[in-house]
Amino acid sequence: MPKSRLEAFADGIFAIAATLLILNVAVAEGQPLGPELVRIWPSYAAYAVSFVTLGVIWINHHLVMHQVSHVDRLFLVLNVLFLAVIAFIPFPTRLLSLYITTGDAKAAALGYGITLTLTAVMFNAIWRYAAWGRRLIRQDADPKVVSGIGRSYLPGPIIYFVATVVALVSPQLSAVLYGLIALFYVLESSVFGRAEAR
Amino acid sequence: MPKSRLEAFADGIFAIAATLLILNVAVAEGQPLGPELVRIWPSYAAYAVSFVTLGVIWINHHLVMHQVSHVDRLFLVLNVLFLAVIAFIPFPTRLLSLYITTGDAKAAALGYGITLTLTAVMFNAIWRYAAWGRRLIRQDADPKVVSGIGRSYLPGPIIYFVATVVALVSPQLSAVLYGLIALFYVLESSVFGRAEAR
Amino acid sequence: MPKSRLEAFADGIFAIAATLLILNVAVAEGQPLGPELVRIWPSYAAYAVSFVTLGVIWINHHLVMHQVSHVDRLFLVLNVLFLAVIAFIPFPTRLLSLYITTGDAKAAALGYGITLTLTAVMFNAIWRYAAWGRRLIRQDADPKVVSGIGRSYLPGPIIYFVATVVALVSPQLSAVLYGLIALFYVLESSVFGRAEAR
Amino acid sequence: MPKSRLEAFADGIFAIAATLLILNVAVAEGQPLGPELVRIWPSYAAYAVSFVTLGVIWINHHLVMHQVSHVDRLFLVLNVLFLAVIAFIPFPTRLLSLYITTGDAKAAALGYGITLTLTAVMFNAIWRYAAWGRRLIRQDADPKVVSGIGRSYLPGPIIYFVATVVALVSPQLSAVLYGLIALFYVLESSVFGRAEAR
Repeated sequence: MPKSRLEAFADGIFAIAATLLILNVAVAEGQPLGPELVRIWPSYAAYAVSFVTLGVIWINHHLVMHQVSHVDRLFLVLNVLFLAVIAFIPFPTRLLSLYITTGDAKAAALGYGITLTLTAVMFNAIWRYAAWGRRLIRQDADPKVVSGIGRSYLPGPIIYFVATVVALVSPQLSAVLYGLIALFYVLESSVFGRAEAR
Repeated sequence: MPKSRLEAFADGIFAIAATLLILNVAVAEGQPLGPELVRIWPSYAAYAVSFVTLGVIWINHHLVMHQVSHVDRLFLVLNVLFLAVIAFIPFPTRLLSLYITTGDAKAAALGYGITLTLTAVMFNAIWRYAAWGRRLIRQDADPKVVSGIGRSYLPGPIIYFVATVVALVSPQLSAVLYGLIALFYVLESSVFGRAEAR
Repeated sequence: MPKSRLEAFADGIFAIAATLLILNVAVAEGQPLGPELVRIWPSYAAYAVSFVTLGVIWINHHLVMHQVSHVDRLFLVLNVLFLAVIAFIPFPTRLLSLYITTGDAKAAALGYGITLTLTAVMFNAIWRYAAWGRRLIRQDADPKVVSGIGRSYLPGPIIYFVATVVALVSPQLSAVLYGLIALFYVLESSVFGRAEAR
Repeated sequence: MPKSRLEAFADGIFAIAATLLILNVAVAEGQPLGPELVRIWPSYAAYAVSFVTLGVIWINHHLVMHQVSHVDRLFLVLNVLFLAVIAFIPFPTRLLSLYITTGDAKAAALGYGITLTLTAVMFNAIWRYAAWGRRLIRQDADPKVVSGIGRSYLPGPIIYFVATVVALVSPQLSAVLYGLIALFYVLESSVFGRAEAR
């Protein structure tokens, strides 16, 4: 079974989920616009963090599919479940935008963290399934690259789980951590990317 | 006529319809967030069931197109009608999310069931048209696979029709059946997928 | 310049515009659901007519691009303008859904007709530009097919213009005409398609 | 790393952002429809300007990718950041639609201008990164075309920055400038396109 349609479907879900994030950026009508544009700053931050997070996950999905030679039906089903979590991200992003500066910040930060932890778990599941016994890996893939990818994805669920638990004590700190994780992954991708480009 | 643009258009509709489902997951603003996130549990369930259902139909469309060598205009028109039903699914999903726990559950469950029954009917129509006299099937397709696909798609409309009729007696049981049907298809896809991967 | 990215962009716009149509199908909350689902029947009709219309235009765009060997920048710009009208269609569809059974039916039917007339004009412009002196047509294209496509697209703007003018007298009749035009194009595509398949 | 999935992802974001613009075109319900359709004229203008602007940027992204032979991870990350600004455009477009005829016009015009200036800056960053030492440029690319592209993108940020500063004095003039810039780019693309086609 060719992998191109899975890539098209996945690229579509990533692109739409990322673009729908903008619907969470909205001002209250009937209020003076200037102060409103300042008041809704958490929605800009949440937009940026979620868009970049989706972008980094998309790049990593790109890397995984690059190592994969073909897909089977269980791999497709795992990807559908994974993409269901990806397409869910606009909802907790909306919660962060609306509630992180209110008394309901804890529920919002927990909702965001649980979703992102689940995303990282699902991503690892997809990779483990593809790489187990090199089931779906293309023959000419470099074993070092394959085992390197496996190692680099392991910490994701733990990092997001820790940031989620922090929300129980300080939702605001937890939100900052979500931003720092996204920033870390962007920098790590960029530096790694520069190494590859040499 | 090449089949690649139909695949691109179909993948787009599937991906967008699935991603728009998240717009049905929403909390009432001005209420405490924690209890709200619990109260809207039907919208999580409806999101998961519809996303996975769309994903499974997408995988099956994938399989059909894999057996097809080319498309003609009637096949394109049938696909447009099929995709019109696919893109309709977010609406009855919204009805289930909002009304399954209210006195209007019956209308919501009927709306969902009718849409899904129609989807299954249209899917069979597409396959029958392509496979009739091997009209659009590629020459090297295995006759056993072709007739096997035909048989495996036959029960879909009946299963969804039965679950829809159940809604007349118990909308809640009907909703559970929609979930079980999705779960069944996921498991069947996965097991079948594992067999293929061997 | 390759034509594949224009096809991808156009397929995306068509698929998203068609899928967004479902946002126009909505019930008023706080009303009994059964009667509401009956009351909003114009939104089902408008959804079906616009989805099928977009689908038929997409198939025809498919046919045009199949005759085209390459694209130039003016062709890209014309396509962007054409796609701006395509992506506008959900708005007049919403007007038809909400207002065709009210005293504001005339403005709604006029809005729909003007948009569809403009779509047909733009479609002809794209084809004329590509076919003029066979500017962008691939060398092995059958001259009969090329001139046949040109002739078959000529009536579109006139048909939609007439249906739009009818709205000044009877918006409801005009809406029926929009539906009949879509049905006519579906049947014509199907019959033509069957001929090709033989 | 192949460039095709970046193109698919970018085409998706451009197409979805452009199509979501239509959600900003809306009438107030419960008002006579005819006058409403006239009153919301700024939303038509904003829709047209932003759609065409997105279309022109998409064409230019198309041209850049046509010169690029491969991508590295930093290029992917830069594109994700660029696309985050692209997907943001529906929000300031909405502000222009709703506020340009009100006392809040200045904040709306500034928001639009800042977003478009940022878009132009990011676009230049992407091109500089790809073209620097011909890092990602394909070997057979014409050096004149490569340096010509670089020069033609330089004025973008400055032009948008000037139009943004004008908003401090006259938001309406600034909005007219945004429209003229889009018109200029369309004409420039078309004329250039005709030259290429010869």
